[in-house]
Order: sequence, then structure tokens, then C-alpha cells
Amino acid sequence: MNAVEKWGVFEVSVSGKTDKNPFVDYDIQGTFAGKNETVTTDGFYDGNGVYKVRFMPSFEGEYTYKITGSFSDREETGSFVVTAPSENNHGPVRVANSTHFVYEDGTPYYSVGTTCYVWTHQSQELQQKTLETLSKGYFNKIRFCIFPKHYDYNLNEPITYPFVGKPMDSSVLTKENFMEYDGACEGNEWDFTHFDPKHFQLFEQRIQDLMDMGIEADLIVMHPYDRWGFSEMSQEDDDRYWKYVIARFAAYRNVWWSLANEYDLLKKKTLADWERYAKIICEKDPYNHPRSIHNCRDFYDHNRPWITHCSLQRQDRHKSTEFTLEYAEKYKKPIVWDEICYEGNISHCWGNISGEELVRRFWEAAIRGGYAGHGETYEHPEDILWWSHGGELHGTSPERLKFLHQIMCETPGVGLAPLSMPVFSRGTVFGWDDEVAIPYDLAYRGSYYLIYFGYFRPAFREYHLDDINEYEVEVIDTWEMTVKKVGVFKGKFRVELPGKEYMAIRIRKLSK
Amino acid sequence: MNAVEKWGVFEVSVSGKTDKNPFVDYDIQGTFAGKNETVTTDGFYDGNGVYKVRFMPSFEGEYTYKITGSFSDREETGSFVVTAPSENNHGPVRVANSTHFVYEDGTPYYSVGTTCYVWTHQSQELQQKTLETLSKGYFNKIRFCIFPKHYDYNLNEPITYPFVGKPMDSSVLTKENFMEYDGACEGNEWDFTHFDPKHFQLFEQRIQDLMDMGIEADLIVMHPYDRWGFSEMSQEDDDRYWKYVIARFAAYRNVWWSLANEYDLLKKKTLADWERYAKIICEKDPYNHPRSIHNCRDFYDHNRPWITHCSLQRQDRHKSTEFTLEYAEKYKKPIVWDEICYEGNISHCWGNISGEELVRRFWEAAIRGGYAGHGETYEHPEDILWWSHGGELHGTSPERLKFLHQIMCETPGVGLAPLSMPVFSRGTVFGWDDEVAIPYDLAYRGSYYLIYFGYFRPAFREYHLDDINEYEVEVIDTWEMTVKKVGVFKGKFRVELPGKEYMAIRIRKLSK
Repeated sequence: MNAVEKWGVFEVSVSGKTDKNPFVDYDIQGTFAGKNETVTTDGFYDGNGVYKVRFMPSFEGEYTYKITGSFSDREETGSFVVTAPSENNHGPVRVANSTHFVYEDGTPYYSVGTTCYVWTHQSQELQQKTLETLSKGYFNKIRFCIFPKHYDYNLNEPITYPFVGKPMDSSVLTKENFMEYDGACEGNEWDFTHFDPKHFQLFEQRIQDLMDMGIEADLIVMHPYDRWGFSEMSQEDDDRYWKYVIARFAAYRNVWWSLANEYDLLKKKTLADWERYAKIICEKDPYNHPRSIHNCRDFYDHNRPWITHCSLQRQDRHKSTEFTLEYAEKYKKPIVWDEICYEGNISHCWGNISGEELVRRFWEAAIRGGYAGHGETYEHPEDILWWSHGGELHGTSPERLKFLHQIMCETPGVGLAPLSMPVFSRGTVFGWDDEVAIPYDLAYRGSYYLIYFGYFRPAFREYHLDDINEYEVEVIDTWEMTVKKVGVFKGKFRVELPGKEYMAIRIRKLSK
Repeated sequence: MNAVEKWGVFEVSVSGKTDKNPFVDYDIQGTFAGKNETVTTDGFYDGNGVYKVRFMPSFEGEYTYKITGSFSDREETGSFVVTAPSENNHGPVRVANSTHFVYEDGTPYYSVGTTCYVWTHQSQELQQKTLETLSKGYFNKIRFCIFPKHYDYNLNEPITYPFVGKPMDSSVLTKENFMEYDGACEGNEWDFTHFDPKHFQLFEQRIQDLMDMGIEADLIVMHPYDRWGFSEMSQEDDDRYWKYVIARFAAYRNVWWSLANEYDLLKKKTLADWERYAKIICEKDPYNHPRSIHNCRDFYDHNRPWITHCSLQRQDRHKSTEFTLEYAEKYKKPIVWDEICYEGNISHCWGNISGEELVRRFWEAAIRGGYAGHGETYEHPEDILWWSHGGELHGTSPERLKFLHQIMCETPGVGLAPLSMPVFSRGTVFGWDDEVAIPYDLAYRGSYYLIYFGYFRPAFREYHLDDINEYEVEVIDTWEMTVKKVGVFKGKFRVELPGKEYMAIRIRKLSK
């Protein structure tokens, strides 16, 4: 009997009609039924006469399935068994505690994202290098695009296109003139009613690779950096694209739907378009993967009910993650700062901060109960920049982000909350100047404090939590990645610090 | 014949009645008349039967004077000659170009301030050390208090008191309990109708010392850090104090009136009080010295006509001088950021940023046409912190501030204006990400650009000013204090940068 693990991908392949256009003229659905769930989901045409339906089971045990639709004149049925998830399979990521995340099995998910917009559209050799880098465990989420990207440092052609046809002649492009090529340029010849399955097969292999490494795939389904016209398709073509993408990818447990990168730069799309895409996802994705929409300048209205978390780009030249609390209070959803400037040295203002500054911004997010995203944009002799192409990392931040993740994983319960959040009464122990986080879960209130100083450099700090309990105090150097136990204290106590930037203090109540 | 230089202090001493209380029961005025001005100003009682009247002439040539008042039964008259100002005497500082300053002789004044709140109340030995440090030319303005200060690190007694009487017993004070002593504490015994001239004589000697060094004395006339009750005197006592201070100090050309430090922490003072003090200054100061009032949290309404410039404390934990343009547009007055965190390592959040960060904040102010203030708060074995006590400097910022001042002095005209200011049409040459300043004076428009990158680290920048003129380009390392000529360019050009923080570019049009 066929077997698949819980939250794994169960796929049924069947042959079907090819006399007309299978992408438009035929449909296929699968219904998967176990003791605790019955899920009907769309399949898709994968080329060469083969249709597929994919399913992600949420329960263990025996399942049956039935494949129906106009693609064939006969139904296909079968059965399979769902086994326990393997060790590193915690299920899809869900929102928990209002502004945080857990995997479906209850394990906290502390997001440390990165961005390689079009790494899957580069050479296979470069993609392997990216996978190798990702395997080092710096990140547990990565943002990347289904469509290829046209932008500074991104004038090359992708290895495949999502549609059958041919692209404009890119030999006319230079670093000076590329901005004149925008949207549906002359010379492009695409048949938007014919997807190229190869493009999607290669892409989903990468989703699978990431899943195997425990990395969430934050899929950017639309974006404005375009010379092929993929950002300016008709409503009918857009909707067909969305349904195809969902049918193919939704069964991968690590998929997140990012409706767009910089949605506000897509000149031809209206609010009604975005809301329509969202409706399609909500109808067609049976698994409720995380859904977000990422801004360039103005935020989308993150109060919209279909948005599961706020995927933000900073709006201020100097402050970014410092605004986490304001937005958490406004939207009451997880705050994920997916773009807050990248570590690097390119000319673009969003791509040349230091590793220190990027790591500081991550901590400023974390200490307020938010999450941030990494990117790297160092000048490279072959113009291979992690932010778009993947490859190797050259910066100083990744190791420190891994360290931050480790500290986060040591939080009791799920997620941190800033001490000044209205739900917690702020004691007089911490001055207004300390950025203090405590576990979100009320059960742990008063038992754990994480204090972060950023670029402030106190040589000491004094605390007075209560006169009854004993507290273990550690000094954390977030840059040097050290945790130093400084003692167990009771009543009023003083913690000596090195008077350096990027220090933190962790205080944990000892159980009696 | 007596002689004094233009903008010098001409003083007339006369003996007078002492039978009643000379501070309250007698008055004295002087009228000073030259060809171009006639000034009547109050004098003051200086103890030991001696009354004095001081005058700062604004024109060269012969003057006569007449001293009148109830202090004596006879008038005193005389004459003197006003000579040309000596080389380093440029006159008092005035507002120019809306948001900038010039000395009265037209020399631009680019303010680089520091803060030593109560340096004049420390031992004479320490004061000499402070003067020695100040003589190194890092700063051209210093903020300090007429009253002594009671605060963390400031529990010692001043060398003199402004009034006759005796202070509370300070041996009861500790670092733990001092905050309980606030305002008019038990044990203080002061006669607010009897000034102690010694206190003011010592103080004005320091104003004179600063004047000789070309440093503006930004006098903080009131402040809230008080255990003696000087912050809680009656309206009558306050007004007498203000008049005495003005009569004594107004003739020193380097005096600025800071009505208060953190006026909003003076619990017993009302808006009507501050407005009344301002009225007294405007009536009694014949020379129109700069007038400001400094906040802790809420700004005073800097639109009030008597306020010559905005003396600001940052209101945000992370952004300070980055708000310069917003306030310049709102108040249309010079923006002087007198408190933006100090270089140091003490526990207080406002006193532990790095030299790098403080210098960056100065540049962020400068590039937007504003000015900033320095302070230093490093832990010290004897608790001598520059911010309050003066003494020696231990930080890394002062040299860099001197370098910034030198760069500012090389600005054509008076003052810098951000290129994005509405009055200037913003070209397409500079991206939205560059912080660019040009000379405020329209005459120099298009001929000079100062571009500052702060913590952004581009490895290059491209410019295209026009196709006609030649431009000399320099790369400035604001931290290493180097200016490197990189060439003369025409049309579109690229400037290589080291990809480091704190870099700037200066572009100057070559005359044909």
C-alpha cells in the first residue's frame, strides 16, 4: 500500500486528454478521505499527457482518494496510509499567541528569514551552491519569486519561463537603460494559456529541498521587476496563474503565500485584483498556509482578515524594527520585517548596511515580539548577490542570526512580548530606557526577562525584581555570541556590563 | 580716556547706599550714548557698598554715560572711547538665513556645542582643567547652569550659592535616596532677597574666559535638578533673580539665554511664568542675545516670537537629529539639538552611546541644516563626568566634531540646506537615499554639494549634475578625518567609496 508521512506530499499522477489545451479546457480534482478529514483539491496538468493531484494529510491512518474531472472520461480511485511525521517534520507554520508562530505540532517557530529573490532561476550549479549555504542553518525562511526578475544586477535570462513563448531580445539591456524596459515590452511573445511545466517542476523541487532542510518557502507569487509582461497579464490570465500555482504548491507544508513583493509598484493592479487573488487562495488552498502582501512604500491594510501576518518593508530611512510594537498593536498579527536594508556595500540605499546594524535590527524586532529578514548585497566580480541570486554568503550577520535564533528557542512558551505592552503592568524595576521582553505566555510571566541594549552601552544596570525569589543572571554578547553566567541574585542587584554595543541580559527565576 | 573695544564689556563701578537692602530697596541705571546709539540699562549691587553698570557698545567712536538711580543721591557721568574689535571678536551671535547663525560682523557661526552643566560650581582646580580642555577648540558653545545641580553623580555642594543662607545637610544623601530630595527640602535656609555677589563674580569670570576663547556661553538660568529650593521660589523672587542675572551678564557678547533645561520638569512653573521671564529678558536685555527654552519631553511652543532658536532634546529613543528638517519647516528657526544622548557608558539611557554614533548624529543634523550638542558621560573613579563637572575628555568624538566644524566653515555663504527642502527643486541626480546639503545662500546654488551617508556604506555612487560644468570631487572620511581629492569630472561620473560607514562626498563646481 502507498504510504506518506503526516504533512508530507501525497501525489496521484494520471494520464488524460490532450486534444485541446489541457491548461484551459479540462479540469481535475481529487478528494482525499481519512477518518478525521475529507479534502477536495484541484489538480493540474504537468505536460506530456500527465495530470497530477497533490494532497497534504493532516492526520495519521488510512485514506482513500478519488480523482475526477473533465480531463478523463473515467474516475481514478485508490488508498494509502499516513504514517507518523519524521523527526524534523513539525507540520505547517501557524499563527499562535496573536503575534507569533508555531508549527502545527506545537513546536514554536521563530522566524529568521532571508531573501534570494530569483535563486531558483539561476544556473543549476549556482542553485546547488545556494542549497549548500542554506544547509548551514542560518535561516528558517526564504523569500523568492515564481516569476523571473528584471532589475539592477538582474538583467540575465532565467533558466526557464513560466509560459510557452519567447522573451524580448535582452542584448539591448545595459545598466544604464534597463529601467526603460518595464512590464510588457515589445518583442515578448508569450502564450499565457500555456504554462511551461518544466519551470514549475524545477521550482517545486526547490520547495521540496527547502522542506527537507526545515526552511519555510515564502513564495512571492507576483512582483513588479519585469520586462516580460508577467506583471501586466489580464485578469483571466492572472487568475489561471494563481490557480495553477496553488494546485501545484499548496501540498508542500513549508509554503507561504506572499501575494506580491512591493505590491504598490505593480501599476496595473488594483485593490480589487489583490482582494480577488486573496479570495482565490482562501478558496483553493485547503491547508491555510500563511498569507501576506509586502509593500514598497504604503502598507496594504493588514487588518484584512485573509492576511495572516504583516510582511513589512521599513518606511523610514532610520527606524525599522523599532516600530514593531506599534504595528503589533495596530494589526494584532505577527510582525515580520521582510525588508529592513541588507548587509552589503552596493550603491542602493537599501543594500549597504553593516552586519552589526542588520543584526541590531533583528534584535530590536525580537525584543518587541517581532521577526526580521536578512539579505546580502555585497558587490561581486560576477554580480552574484545573495539577495537575488543566492550562492555564497560573504557577510558577518548570518552566524549572529543563528545565535539569536538559539536564544529565541530558549524562550519558555511561545514568543516574546515587550514588557511595556499594555497587557503587562510595567514595574519600576526597569527604566523606560531598557528594551525588555518577557515570554508571551502568561504562565511564564515574571519568570524570564530578556533585556537588549542595542547601540546603548551601559557599564552596569541595577535591578530589583522582588525580595523573595532568586534569579539567575546571564550577560549575552549578541555580536561575539557568548552567554556568560554572572550569578544568582535576590532583592536589588547590579549587573556589570562591558560598556560595549549589542549587549543583552537574560534573567531567569530559579524554581524553588 | 577710558577705552573699550566694540562688543567688549564697559563697566562703571560706583559706591552707593547700604543702609537698607541694596538688592531690593535701591535701583541703578546707566545711559550710554554714542553717535549711533543710546542705551539705557539696569545696573546691580555687587556687595561691599559697590554698585555696577555694564554696557556692550555696538559702534566704534566716543561715548558718554550717566549713572542714575535711588542707590545714590548724586549722578555719575563720564566718557569713553570704543575702539575696533580685536581679531577674534566677531560680536554677538545672531540668527541668519532663517535657520542659521552669524556673528554680528557677518562671520558665519557654525554651532558645535557641549554641555558641562555645573562646571563653574566645582573646585577652582577642576575649573582650570575644564578651561584647559575647552582651549583645545573642540566646541564653540557650552551649556551650563547658574544654579547648582542636584542629581545622580551630582550630590556634592557647589563652591558658592547664589543667595545668602545655608543649605540642608547633604550628608544624608546617597545614590539610593537622592531622588527623594526634590525642590525646597527641609533644612535649607535662604534669604532670596540677598544675592551672594561672590557666586556671580566667579560665574561671570568664566563667561569672560569663554568669551576670550571664542566660546558662546549658553546660560541655563533655571533647571529642575534641585534640593535647595531654587526651582521653587516665589514669582517675586524669580523676577528679582532674572533681573539681577540680566543686569550682570547681558553685556558679555557671548551670552545666550536658555530659560531652562527641561523646563517641563519644573513642576511649580506655569506657562505664564515662562512667558513672564521671557518678557523680562526682552525688556531688560538691550542686546537681543539668543533666547531658547529646552525640553525634557514636550517641546515648548517654539513659534513664540521671543524664541530665537529651537533648543531641542530628542523625543525618540532611536531618531534625533534626523528630524531636523521637520522642525526647521515647522518653526522656521535654527534647530539646535542640545541633547541627543552623550558619548559614554553610564547606566542612564541618555549617556552611553559611542563616539561614532554621536558624531553621526552631528552630521545628520549638519546635513539637514541643523546643529547638535555634545556631552560626555564615562564612568570615572572620582565621579567626574564632563557632562556635569567638566574636567578632561575621554571620548573619541571631540576631534571629529572639530573636523566637522572645519568642513562647515568651508561652506560658501552662511549655512547648509538639505537639497530636498521645498525651496530647492530636487534633481534626479541624487537618489532619494542620499542625504545631500547645499549652501543655504541662493547665490551658491548648484555650485556645492555635501553628501553624507551615515551608517550606509555604498562602495560607489554615480552622479550626473550637468553636461557643461566641471566639478571637483572629494571623498571625506568623517571618522578618520581625511579629505581625499578624487578628481575633476564632467557629465556623468562615478565616485568610488571604501564601503565603510561615516563617509561623505563633497562636490564643488569649478569656476570657468
